[in-house]
Amino acid sequence: MPSERIRILITGGTFDKEYNELTGQLYFKDSHLPEMLRLGRSNLDLEVRTLMMIDSLDMSGDDRRIILEHCLNSPEHRIVITHGTDTMVDTAKMLATHIRDKTIVLTGAMVPYMFGSSDGLFNLGSALAFAQTLPSGVYVAMNGRRYPAGSVRKNRETGMFEAES
Amino acid sequence: MPSERIRILITGGTFDKEYNELTGQLYFKDSHLPEMLRLGRSNLDLEVRTLMMIDSLDMSGDDRRIILEHCLNSPEHRIVITHGTDTMVDTAKMLATHIRDKTIVLTGAMVPYMFGSSDGLFNLGSALAFAQTLPSGVYVAMNGRRYPAGSVRKNRETGMFEAES
Amino acid sequence: MPSERIRILITGGTFDKEYNELTGQLYFKDSHLPEMLRLGRSNLDLEVRTLMMIDSLDMSGDDRRIILEHCLNSPEHRIVITHGTDTMVDTAKMLATHIRDKTIVLTGAMVPYMFGSSDGLFNLGSALAFAQTLPSGVYVAMNGRRYPAGSVRKNRETGMFEAES
Amino acid sequence: MPSERIRILITGGTFDKEYNELTGQLYFKDSHLPEMLRLGRSNLDLEVRTLMMIDSLDMSGDDRRIILEHCLNSPEHRIVITHGTDTMVDTAKMLATHIRDKTIVLTGAMVPYMFGSSDGLFNLGSALAFAQTLPSGVYVAMNGRRYPAGSVRKNRETGMFEAES
Repeated sequence: MPSERIRILITGGTFDKEYNELTGQLYFKDSHLPEMLRLGRSNLDLEVRTLMMIDSLDMSGDDRRIILEHCLNSPEHRIVITHGTDTMVDTAKMLATHIRDKTIVLTGAMVPYMFGSSDGLFNLGSALAFAQTLPSGVYVAMNGRRYPAGSVRKNRETGMFEAES
Repeated sequence: MPSERIRILITGGTFDKEYNELTGQLYFKDSHLPEMLRLGRSNLDLEVRTLMMIDSLDMSGDDRRIILEHCLNSPEHRIVITHGTDTMVDTAKMLATHIRDKTIVLTGAMVPYMFGSSDGLFNLGSALAFAQTLPSGVYVAMNGRRYPAGSVRKNRETGMFEAES
Repeated sequence: MPSERIRILITGGTFDKEYNELTGQLYFKDSHLPEMLRLGRSNLDLEVRTLMMIDSLDMSGDDRRIILEHCLNSPEHRIVITHGTDTMVDTAKMLATHIRDKTIVLTGAMVPYMFGSSDGLFNLGSALAFAQTLPSGVYVAMNGRRYPAGSVRKNRETGMFEAES
Repeated sequence: MPSERIRILITGGTFDKEYNELTGQLYFKDSHLPEMLRLGRSNLDLEVRTLMMIDSLDMSGDDRRIILEHCLNSPEHRIVITHGTDTMVDTAKMLATHIRDKTIVLTGAMVPYMFGSSDGLFNLGSALAFAQTLPSGVYVAMNGRRYPAGSVRKNRETGMFEAES
């Protein structure tokens, strides 16, 4: 039995940052998502789109509207969005006010995938699994868990995501 | 809201193999699971037990009974088992005939975690997510997907897991 | 036959930068040099000292004097200095005006060791080898080659080191 | 000033072993040497040839003769040979009886380059540096040091190379 197709929307974030050896700065080149799916030996039916490659601290209202548009227009009912962790909750909350009939899971990474110590691959496997099993709604998948968009926050001291009443 | 505790039972498999530089052979030392959970920045409430560290081709009926015992005696209702991929389906089918009231997810890796190109971290995140959301039953989580124990097989040509009628 | 002892002086640089997941910035913690020597399975007799952990763009005259002092006072006649690449040539030139009777090899990395794509391990093996065989003098060891301090520059377009007349 | 061209002869060994996920065995595909030179950001003038890709335990007299032929016919006077560590000393000793006018440095790895904990990159940087500075002769470059072919052995307990009288 084939799996239901899942759409992956890439927006950048620490997940995809790279080190520019000439400037010593972190920056964006191409997404590593295809490479990560190969590493994970994913057998899922996926539609992957890169919407933007930015730090979520730089995300504007227009950027969020682009993400919303793509979610609304997606023929797939199950969507994973890779996103910077700093404003992931903001985007999740905004999406939740507009979309009720799709399962949307936002995830990201605290350490760039290109670093040896990245949580990116773990989070990607996690988010794709949650996208397949959770009922309609918007969720944040980080630290092995999922949180409904309306009750999650990023603890900026620990860098971990947690439930918020 | 704290997450429901999940039990992880480690049995070895390619997931945990290491390279012995003196003999040139792959072998087992300590499990890398704790390290992988740290890398994934897991915030889950977990109880981790190492039952054995063996290649699943070397698994005997007694070994499988040990795994079964631990599943039956586990106070947790959600269990992830790391296991060699060669006979993962056999263990899954055996567990499914005896256990109906727990969510048990078996996973492993095609390439040792210690290799740069391992699917281990991806599979671990995937399995832990499935363990949190799937209803009671025994499943195999590989290649980003989950398969009920009664209808999955490992395709030995491709190394991928697929549904089997 | 035991090898002649080599002194390694650590000053930081990109070589040792780490990613701070809470701030998204690169920063210094402990040097990775001991770990790199273990990875390289080094059998050399080494005396390792951390003098500072800074970006070489932040190096002051006082910092350079500290490096000079340690070189002058080193009982070992063969010294490797890990250093940021941006002002490595400046430090090398300064050392060359004061020291003539020791073999001093400066090296670093264009990409932090913690990144998968680092040149750090290659450069370390290279610099330690040059330190064992070159006659007295101050050298920069980068890109697999060594350059006398008086005739090397960093090409800021390519990030490579090259001979300069 | 351009660097003198160095020839690299690839023969395989643990240096280049890969993990076959379908069979669970280590095997040879293509050499990773070009990739390692890119990682090390090598600026050396190099001529690279793959002679064979075998475990040095499987090396025959004919295989060694091929290596010898290529060394004798090499227009370059500085040669690095990547080789399995198990019989690296045997090949080195054989080459030393036939060649006196070239600098030949053999190196390898105790752990495959594809493993996270490989000494391959360190050894490659080391061997290339020794090849540039050592006088004519045949040497083994391992563990950060170099040993003349006539007085080196591999300690099979520790996996380290050491001088032998």
